[in-house]
Amino acid sequence: MAADPTTGGGEAESFFRAAPPLRDQDRVAGDLADFVARHSGSGGGGRLAGVVCVTSGGTTVPLEQRCVRYIDNFSSGQRGAASTEYFLKAGYAVIFIYRRGSKQPYCRFLPEDSFLDLFELGEESDIQVPESHAAVVKTAIRNYRKAIDEGLLLKLPFTTIFEYLQLLQMVGTAMNCLGRQGMFYLAAAVSDFYVPWESMAKHKIESASGPLNMQLNQVPKMLFILRKQWAPSAFCVSFKLETDPDILLQKAEAALRKYGMNVVVANELANYKDVVVMVTSNGRTTVRRPSKEDDVEEQLIDLLVEMHSEHIMQLNQDVHKLT
Amino acid sequence: MAADPTTGGGEAESFFRAAPPLRDQDRVAGDLADFVARHSGSGGGGRLAGVVCVTSGGTTVPLEQRCVRYIDNFSSGQRGAASTEYFLKAGYAVIFIYRRGSKQPYCRFLPEDSFLDLFELGEESDIQVPESHAAVVKTAIRNYRKAIDEGLLLKLPFTTIFEYLQLLQMVGTAMNCLGRQGMFYLAAAVSDFYVPWESMAKHKIESASGPLNMQLNQVPKMLFILRKQWAPSAFCVSFKLETDPDILLQKAEAALRKYGMNVVVANELANYKDVVVMVTSNGRTTVRRPSKEDDVEEQLIDLLVEMHSEHIMQLNQDVHKLT
Repeated sequence: MAADPTTGGGEAESFFRAAPPLRDQDRVAGDLADFVARHSGSGGGGRLAGVVCVTSGGTTVPLEQRCVRYIDNFSSGQRGAASTEYFLKAGYAVIFIYRRGSKQPYCRFLPEDSFLDLFELGEESDIQVPESHAAVVKTAIRNYRKAIDEGLLLKLPFTTIFEYLQLLQMVGTAMNCLGRQGMFYLAAAVSDFYVPWESMAKHKIESASGPLNMQLNQVPKMLFILRKQWAPSAFCVSFKLETDPDILLQKAEAALRKYGMNVVVANELANYKDVVVMVTSNGRTTVRRPSKEDDVEEQLIDLLVEMHSEHIMQLNQDVHKLT
Repeated sequence: MAADPTTGGGEAESFFRAAPPLRDQDRVAGDLADFVARHSGSGGGGRLAGVVCVTSGGTTVPLEQRCVRYIDNFSSGQRGAASTEYFLKAGYAVIFIYRRGSKQPYCRFLPEDSFLDLFELGEESDIQVPESHAAVVKTAIRNYRKAIDEGLLLKLPFTTIFEYLQLLQMVGTAMNCLGRQGMFYLAAAVSDFYVPWESMAKHKIESASGPLNMQLNQVPKMLFILRKQWAPSAFCVSFKLETDPDILLQKAEAALRKYGMNVVVANELANYKDVVVMVTSNGRTTVRRPSKEDDVEEQLIDLLVEMHSEHIMQLNQDVHKLT
């Protein structure tokens, strides 16, 4: 039997073969096909600026098949949620692949652990929002409703690395027909190491018998396969997060070359909300938020949208030359 | 220098010594002292049934000091959040030690990832809740406001195992003055293994150099120290979660004896919302929820409140005999 060309062969293929199959796979595939069909061909001169797949939040690595313990990656989903809002504002349709429970577009302002603190009951038991929060809550409800009602936002949740990579593969191959109109904005914090499903403990690991030793395998580098096979014409933006600033830009440039990204956005854990560096084959651009009240994502998305439209134009020029 | 008697010496002491100190320690200590003082002496014949410390959600084990990756324990916080509601209803004051981002009392009904789906804007831009949800949202706001306004709910958040155990120690020693009026209801999913802070990687672990090997140490068993030193007269309820039903009750009984708990609540991952078994020195009691619309916690808390009031009475009888 020939290797499935969408899985990239080798390590990636065996990763997908061993992964527990995605629940709701058929429903997700249907929703995806509808969403892409509805928005394909409307880019370029059309109303829509493009279709972007935003990934957001951290993936987990289960340590047990009936999972009690897992390794997680730090990520609130703030970056992906904020970016989704700015992509929608810029006229994109967004496929939002997000970690269950992570930050959601238009909900970022909410108090983390008690949404009830936002509300009070009026004298006639009507639900009221204190004046101080009313404007921001109303704007959030309005923008969210608009995105949903106009069919511009498709939300696909994941928890594990297995779910995430299967979703990315499905979205990647579904968006291939969009060619250069498609963009990937890969802000999720993806596990580098995992325990292969078949070698995983079936039950909760016993704690009575001394220290725990674990060996984890490397997750196959799917960026490469996304770029080469799933959606080769798309505009690809990936992220590189490090805690050590001395190696950050160097690693971002290595990723740019190794995976053929259009942009690698480099950020440090200590100040990722304040500043990012866009690394491209033309050099580096530092993006800083003007103040603590602003989002660094606003300017970042502006710049990326511009670069993406150049990426689309390039094709149009190429086509023009041929005719 | 003599060993600090509140830390339990040995392993526990070295765990606390090496742990990064709790942020806001002074503020938390102040809030705790106020809360306990306000509610002490009001139990027994008084208005208040008692003071309970409910722990909820999973603890994380950081794998790096500037933490990007961590091991997490599966727990939505559903059990602790629901139980807190029923304890408040039964007339308890509740200290709710919860994992940041986990389920909160009176918010359990919310759609997990999009609270905005609950709301819409009316014609005059007023915030409306669709009729279908209005009753439940209003009840939630009313009950939550009542608990907060009457000072019956103190919420203390944690993320890591280091924060959790430091909070438990602070609450344990602060509640000691309540004697038998105090209850611990330890529903949090606490890590069994951890990486000692001083042996932890400082920066994000590199992924380029092949598989990852990790060795994790056992977390000292703090239940024992809670029972023996921090709050020896309190009524103590702990939980035992397993995925393998064959070893569950046996492990629950071992925990009952080993840590001197009053009750160990045994539950299986597969059906923890449907059924639990209360294990005590007098035997086992199975608690099942009557239907999917009910909470198993309702009956569980009823039974525990009854047992706790017997535990309090016992002291009163002992005192009576002496006079």
